[in-house]
Amino acid sequence: MADKADKVKGAEELSRDQREISVSEFFEKNRHLLGYDNKVKALLTVVREAVDNSLDACETARIIPDIKVSVKPVDDIKDRYVISVEDNGPGIVKQNVGRVFGKLLFGSKFHKLLQSRGQQGIGISGAVLYSQLTSGKPARIATSTGDGKTHYMNLMIDTFKNEPEIIKEEIKEGKNWHGVKIELEVEGKYVEHQQSVSEYLKQTALSNPYAEIIYDSPDVKIKFERSVKTLPEEPKSIKPHPHGVEIGILRRMLRTTEARTLTGFFTTDFSRVGQSSAKEIIRLAKFGDDVSPRNIDGPQVEKLFQAIQQVQLIKPPLDCLSPLREKLIEEGLKKQLNPEYVVAITRSPDVYRGNPFEVEVGLAYGGELPPDSVATLYRFANRVPLMYQAGDCALAKAVSEIEWRRYGLEQASGASLPTGPIAIFVHIVSVWVPFTSESKEDIASYPEIIKEVKLALQDAGRKLSIYVNKKRKAGEAAMRISLFEKYIPEVADAISRLSGADKHKIASKLENMLKKGKIVIEDTGEPEEGVKQKEDE
Amino acid sequence: MADKADKVKGAEELSRDQREISVSEFFEKNRHLLGYDNKVKALLTVVREAVDNSLDACETARIIPDIKVSVKPVDDIKDRYVISVEDNGPGIVKQNVGRVFGKLLFGSKFHKLLQSRGQQGIGISGAVLYSQLTSGKPARIATSTGDGKTHYMNLMIDTFKNEPEIIKEEIKEGKNWHGVKIELEVEGKYVEHQQSVSEYLKQTALSNPYAEIIYDSPDVKIKFERSVKTLPEEPKSIKPHPHGVEIGILRRMLRTTEARTLTGFFTTDFSRVGQSSAKEIIRLAKFGDDVSPRNIDGPQVEKLFQAIQQVQLIKPPLDCLSPLREKLIEEGLKKQLNPEYVVAITRSPDVYRGNPFEVEVGLAYGGELPPDSVATLYRFANRVPLMYQAGDCALAKAVSEIEWRRYGLEQASGASLPTGPIAIFVHIVSVWVPFTSESKEDIASYPEIIKEVKLALQDAGRKLSIYVNKKRKAGEAAMRISLFEKYIPEVADAISRLSGADKHKIASKLENMLKKGKIVIEDTGEPEEGVKQKEDE
Repeated sequence: MADKADKVKGAEELSRDQREISVSEFFEKNRHLLGYDNKVKALLTVVREAVDNSLDACETARIIPDIKVSVKPVDDIKDRYVISVEDNGPGIVKQNVGRVFGKLLFGSKFHKLLQSRGQQGIGISGAVLYSQLTSGKPARIATSTGDGKTHYMNLMIDTFKNEPEIIKEEIKEGKNWHGVKIELEVEGKYVEHQQSVSEYLKQTALSNPYAEIIYDSPDVKIKFERSVKTLPEEPKSIKPHPHGVEIGILRRMLRTTEARTLTGFFTTDFSRVGQSSAKEIIRLAKFGDDVSPRNIDGPQVEKLFQAIQQVQLIKPPLDCLSPLREKLIEEGLKKQLNPEYVVAITRSPDVYRGNPFEVEVGLAYGGELPPDSVATLYRFANRVPLMYQAGDCALAKAVSEIEWRRYGLEQASGASLPTGPIAIFVHIVSVWVPFTSESKEDIASYPEIIKEVKLALQDAGRKLSIYVNKKRKAGEAAMRISLFEKYIPEVADAISRLSGADKHKIASKLENMLKKGKIVIEDTGEPEEGVKQKEDE
Repeated sequence: MADKADKVKGAEELSRDQREISVSEFFEKNRHLLGYDNKVKALLTVVREAVDNSLDACETARIIPDIKVSVKPVDDIKDRYVISVEDNGPGIVKQNVGRVFGKLLFGSKFHKLLQSRGQQGIGISGAVLYSQLTSGKPARIATSTGDGKTHYMNLMIDTFKNEPEIIKEEIKEGKNWHGVKIELEVEGKYVEHQQSVSEYLKQTALSNPYAEIIYDSPDVKIKFERSVKTLPEEPKSIKPHPHGVEIGILRRMLRTTEARTLTGFFTTDFSRVGQSSAKEIIRLAKFGDDVSPRNIDGPQVEKLFQAIQQVQLIKPPLDCLSPLREKLIEEGLKKQLNPEYVVAITRSPDVYRGNPFEVEVGLAYGGELPPDSVATLYRFANRVPLMYQAGDCALAKAVSEIEWRRYGLEQASGASLPTGPIAIFVHIVSVWVPFTSESKEDIASYPEIIKEVKLALQDAGRKLSIYVNKKRKAGEAAMRISLFEKYIPEVADAISRLSGADKHKIASKLENMLKKGKIVIEDTGEPEEGVKQKEDE
């Protein structure tokens, strides 16, 4: 046994240093978790967080979004930019501005099951944190709710407290607008490539065809015009489904419910539990109907939990989702990529871990798409383009598991994507998108999700293959006709010698017949060989 | 312009739902971020968090660790286990028990630059959170600081508040011990494979050869005995280096310092800044020496930050690190793997982003290692085995960038690891290990880190190659000798016929000479061909 006094000292020493860590400090030190691993990505992440917020705000208020994004280098400081994003959304009420931008884990979406871009309440405040960390400058915000007053605020985050620190605040009257404008100075690097700001905005326009986005980049000003003028249906928020609730959540729901009986608890706090299902659960758990939910604790929670698993319930309501639907996807692909053929498939909703989700895909083919390169894959979740880490993503995995050769496309052996003039669009919407990290780059590989994406792609692939085959056959026929045309003088000459008729007349008759389709050049099944022989002669 | 009243309503509506999210709720919903993505991994993560804490506590108190781990299935409930981990560390003082286990982001290590296993204050409380989420049961803790009293506590986490909720508490006298025992009931799945609990404990024993670990698994009881009886040097905590501090951190340090002058601020709050360097920074920033740090804000912080970058400073102190060192690595590899040859290299410390780090590697070859399979790679960070996601890890990347064929090993073209009876051990220690996620599975790919690992592996590889080549040559020589031996009767017969001497005597003389090494079979450079000819005859 060790020396007594000595040991107590060890414990006391350890205890002296133990203290609380604020969530701001945590993410400040671990900023790569929020997507700020390097300067190029950081610039994109800041833009993305602000644009996501703007689009969410507009849609919640049913306003067709007009968004202005600007990225400007700061004079004399290398790798420093001022990013500003302005929207025409509903604006933010005075008392909330500070916490929306200056407090991590604050938001309206975390406690709801609702399809939206933001879900965690750390996106835009994370951007403010990154900005002050790398530039030392406050965020500059202007907002109006349309009451003729504009609220200006410069703020930083007090990272020890995870609370906003207002540097400057002013309210001016006169300007009549509504929306939010945020300006952040950040360390960043501006480049034009696959994962650039303009590529992100192009893809955002693709998945939000009702939004107009103007981008003032260091190089050029780009306007992404809207291709449709109506918003998609409004997604609805839903209550949790009993089969998607874990025992610890059930315990918390029991303790915080406003229902006074167990029956009331089940029928009001969950979706898809009617009187009879509630009674069946309660009977299986061997409780009385009039037990107060707040009195259930300890091992009784387990009994109730097991009873829930035994009762058959219908799936959660699926009308809470708002996918883009086939028409919008096809129009977006046409507008942004100029292909010659598009097809889109929106699947019926399905459920993973009690959460409804829905998958849709689009394929664009030919036209302005580069003919000989590997296909481009566009991934989206709740209408947000996913720009990084395709390698681990369930959506990318599903695409790579498709045998593209079946659908008339080329695919190198072992390759994940087909080769040719093709772009693949995959979109998942859900009340809770299972991202693999806070930076929201990858979808976790739930088998239900992979399956739905594959089914959608196979369906779209079949439609595409009909077009591709028709086109190939038409192309082959045209090639045969043009070959025949070349030999018309010789054929005419031969006929002329045999029949004695004028060879020019025969030639012009043959040409006419060919034009009118009266001579049909049959597919012999070996066109290449036939051609080769002739070329060899 | 849109309707005024309507817009204000939109903003008000949005604001009603906005509220704070506790960090417990956040990680409860995003538990995959802490390593609880599936049942197999969850079981391992719970064990790992508890064992990491125990080892850290023992080492801080300079106690040689004795750790007991037990995993027991719960009767009648599928996929449910009780995990218990007990140590002989210093224990936890009464007033801190609740928060250490029942509050996320609470700890002693976050605010220090110190080499330790834990760094974020969410490991063990995250395990408690997972336990209550999946079993609904409280964590059971017993601890004593060696004063004859044992403190028992059953607790859960109030996720809304992120505060411990004490279910039961008791202090008993009589038992004389010190340490902590924690028991958690969790949903999990027990399997034996590469990423199992016993594999994790085996690797922990490898990187902590001074610890004794007893594992009571569902299958068998295993004891990992210590191979050395002394702890490695105690790591020291250091102050930040000015070149590793970002502008936002500098601003915060200025505001919270106890120094009253700028010179005092630089010389006391940072490492490696002496009077003259401090004066140079202040001169470059055009401040006075006696300016109070608290009065510096806004654009002045930027001026100071730019001045710091211009001043040459020596590297941060490097004696803050405590690697295992070559002897311990070699002994650990010998004890756990039974190879015939081991070599280890500990590099000198280096710096990334102002943080000192040090890399060491070990190679084990031959013996009980499987001869024909791909090499096993063991990755460690601050003595903790990294069990998942080798694909993205800087340590794995560095290993795969080595041309192993140079060192006499086989390596399939395009393969990352060599083939043969070899195990590769890579360890990084740092005051701040740059993990790519909270679940601490991967090291971020800083070029400085990859470079150091590669240099260490090349150095170890050269040493190994000398052994491998010697062994190959010895093997070839032995083969030639044994071939010659086979032909002794024929040679003896020929000599006997030529000389008339007794062929048995000649044969026994030849055998004797061969044994004594008097006949040296030279390497002709073409042994295979020579052998082949003879075999063909």
